Amino acid sequence: MAKNWIYKTPGIPDEAFDQSEAVPGPTKEEIRVITISKARLREGDTVLDVGCGTGGLTVEAALQVGSRGKVYAIDEDEAAARLTSANVEKFGAQSNVIILSGKAPQALLNLPNADAILIGGGGTQLRTILQIAANKLKSNGRIVVNAILLETATTAIAELKSLGFKDIDITNISVAKGKQINSGTMMLARNPITIVSATKL
Amino acid sequence: MAKNWIYKTPGIPDEAFDQSEAVPGPTKEEIRVITISKARLREGDTVLDVGCGTGGLTVEAALQVGSRGKVYAIDEDEAAARLTSANVEKFGAQSNVIILSGKAPQALLNLPNADAILIGGGGTQLRTILQIAANKLKSNGRIVVNAILLETATTAIAELKSLGFKDIDITNISVAKGKQINSGTMMLARNPITIVSATKL
Repeated sequence: MAKNWIYKTPGIPDEAFDQSEAVPGPTKEEIRVITISKARLREGDTVLDVGCGTGGLTVEAALQVGSRGKVYAIDEDEAAARLTSANVEKFGAQSNVIILSGKAPQALLNLPNADAILIGGGGTQLRTILQIAANKLKSNGRIVVNAILLETATTAIAELKSLGFKDIDITNISVAKGKQINSGTMMLARNPITIVSATKL
Repeated sequence: MAKNWIYKTPGIPDEAFDQSEAVPGPTKEEIRVITISKARLREGDTVLDVGCGTGGLTVEAALQVGSRGKVYAIDEDEAAARLTSANVEKFGAQSNVIILSGKAPQALLNLPNADAILIGGGGTQLRTILQIAANKLKSNGRIVVNAILLETATTAIAELKSLGFKDIDITNISVAKGKQINSGTMMLARNPITIVSATKL
C-alpha cells in the first residue's frame, strides 16, 4: 500500500493526485485531513465515500483503514469514478477500494453497512442520502458531511437532528495559504468549508 | 497504547484531556490534527515536542509513531510537564514518551536527532530554537511551528528561509464551531493559528 505516501498520518499534498479538467480538484489537503479525523477511522473499518470526485478522501481513507479495511467510493459522474480509480492505483490501494459509478441515493442501497460514511455535498437529495446513510451506519459509526454550500450545512444539521443524532459537531474552516512574493508572504484565502459530523448511538 | 482513544486517525476531542488552570488548554482538536499531518509521521519516528503544554500534541504524536517510536516532550513550566505526563498516562503512551522540564533552546541540546520537531511558540528565543532544531532534524525530517502570534509566524518564515529550507508551507487556519441555541446554530470563532512547516533536504 501507499506507494507514493510513506507516512502514517493523512495529509497527502493536493498536487500528488492525478487531476482532470472534467472533475473538480481533490478536497484540499487541510480539509481532507480534518474530514478524515472526524471519521475516526480504525484499521479494518468499512468506509463509504459518497461523491468521491477526484478520490482524495477515498485514498486517505483507504490508507487509514489498511488492507483489512474496505472503502466503497461512488460518484454519479463516470469521469470522476475513473479518476478516483487512477488515484487509488497511484497510491497502491486497489486491493481495498471498490469504485462504483452510480447516483446517490439509489446507488447507496446496494452498499454494505459501514463504520464511517463520508458525504461530499448531496444537492437536493441530501435528506434522502442522509436517511439511507444513517441506516447503513453501524452503531458508534461516524457520519461526516463536507459542505461547500450553506444550504448543505443547514440541511445536514436539520436532518441529522431529526434522525436522532446527538452532539452534532459543526466545524467551519477557513484556510489561507502563504505565497512568497518579492516583498514578503501574501496570504491567499480559500473558500470556507463546513464539516458536519456525528456518531450513531 | 491508546486506552482512551481506539482510533487510528488523530483528532482526540479537547475535553478528553486532563486540564489545569495553571497551564493553557490543549492545542484545539482541528489545529492539532493539521499540525500532526504537517509533521508527516511514520511508525517508529522520533519526535521532539518543544513547549508541550497540556500534552495534546505529545499524545497524538505518540499514538501515531507507536511503540517503536519515541516522543520527547519539553516545557519550561513544571506544571505543564506534570500535566503532559498525566495525559500521556491517560492515553496509555508512557512507554514511548519522555517528558523533560527544561527551557528551550538550552534543553533542546540534550535531545537526540529527530524525524519531526513540533514547536509551539518560542518567544524571543525562536530563532535560536529553530537553528538548533534544524541541526537536530534528520534528512527529510519535518519542522512544524504553531504560531498564535503574527511575530512567531514571520520570524519562523524568515529564519527557516535563512537556514536554507525550501518550499515552506504557510497555512493560516480559522475555525468556528457551531453551537445550538434555541433559534438555530450560532458559529463561535476561535483565534486564527498559522502553521509554518518545511522539510529538511
